[in-house]
Amino acid sequence: MTTPAEPFALPMADQPRVRSDAARNRDALLCTAARMVAEEGAQAVTMDRLAAEAGVGKGTIFRRFGNRCGVMTAVLDESEAHFQTSVMSGPPPLGPGAPAYERLRAFGVARLAATLQRIDLIEAAGGGRSHAAYTFGVLHVRHLLVELGVEGDLPLLAAALLAPLEVPLLRAQIEVQHLPVARLEAAWCDLADRVVGARDQARG
Amino acid sequence: MTTPAEPFALPMADQPRVRSDAARNRDALLCTAARMVAEEGAQAVTMDRLAAEAGVGKGTIFRRFGNRCGVMTAVLDESEAHFQTSVMSGPPPLGPGAPAYERLRAFGVARLAATLQRIDLIEAAGGGRSHAAYTFGVLHVRHLLVELGVEGDLPLLAAALLAPLEVPLLRAQIEVQHLPVARLEAAWCDLADRVVGARDQARG
Repeated sequence: MTTPAEPFALPMADQPRVRSDAARNRDALLCTAARMVAEEGAQAVTMDRLAAEAGVGKGTIFRRFGNRCGVMTAVLDESEAHFQTSVMSGPPPLGPGAPAYERLRAFGVARLAATLQRIDLIEAAGGGRSHAAYTFGVLHVRHLLVELGVEGDLPLLAAALLAPLEVPLLRAQIEVQHLPVARLEAAWCDLADRVVGARDQARG
Repeated sequence: MTTPAEPFALPMADQPRVRSDAARNRDALLCTAARMVAEEGAQAVTMDRLAAEAGVGKGTIFRRFGNRCGVMTAVLDESEAHFQTSVMSGPPPLGPGAPAYERLRAFGVARLAATLQRIDLIEAAGGGRSHAAYTFGVLHVRHLLVELGVEGDLPLLAAALLAPLEVPLLRAQIEVQHLPVARLEAAWCDLADRVVGARDQARG
């Protein structure tokens, strides 16, 4: 009454446990790194301190993430995943359920806040948003532009709307020009108005 | 009949000759570096090759420019100065004499072309446009928006118009997405239309 041997089943049965141990270690490391970033800023996360606070050997961190930049990229990816979840299934107006134009404005304001909050982390992770995170933003804005009936080269309009929310410009506006965040939010919403054509509708 | 001694005049009289020797050396080095960039690309300019081609010692280059990044920054500044001259006093529509809206479109297209042409140089110079170059672009676009009677937060609208012309986005669009330059030009002009309100004027 024994089932026939299935050579494929053996690694399948074993892998989940191995994977879940690895995933648990990884989660613990990321969680510790994210807490350090939140409490003390990205510059506080050195490989030595992370190893000490997470209670693992430095070799483990290097094996898993390559280097400090790899750790920061993983923390950033995690944080980006939370942001995307709130856009895809969080409460309106950022999440679904609000009119497309309100969602567009909410997205710009939320993206601005998220980038400003993580500006040091983004730079510690190599200076650029990940390709996947960037693509998500373009696809979401493009989707909203379609819903709004905007005509034109929508992928490039979406990229143009996201361009003023990138780190180097924001850093110059906040740290060099000392512009208040509320002014950046208002300017972005005005830009979105102009791209969508909401200004003519209001005038007409 | 001798004029009274003027202690301030002595350094004034001497400095020009010293300066002009230094300036000549500097010009020769920059000219050689710019030729190498134009002919073989930024990666061809090593300190060894630059010293050999310009016929000067490597020490001279290090003293004058600090390091390779300093050389590249100086070449880029020189090239940016030519661009600014063509905007300020070159032929229309980029230079003065054309209607403001034609000048705005010409500026976007010319800035795009200039950035694409110098993309490796910009990265070799440290990855960012100089603060002065960026400020020039913002001031010029803002000036044209004023001429066009655009109302709003003009410095931030100008910054938003320039944002899609920065290196990281252009590099992704050209090298990863393989978008044709003509499509980027058309999309930028469409963005400018929307910001200026030219689209409503055309419709109304």
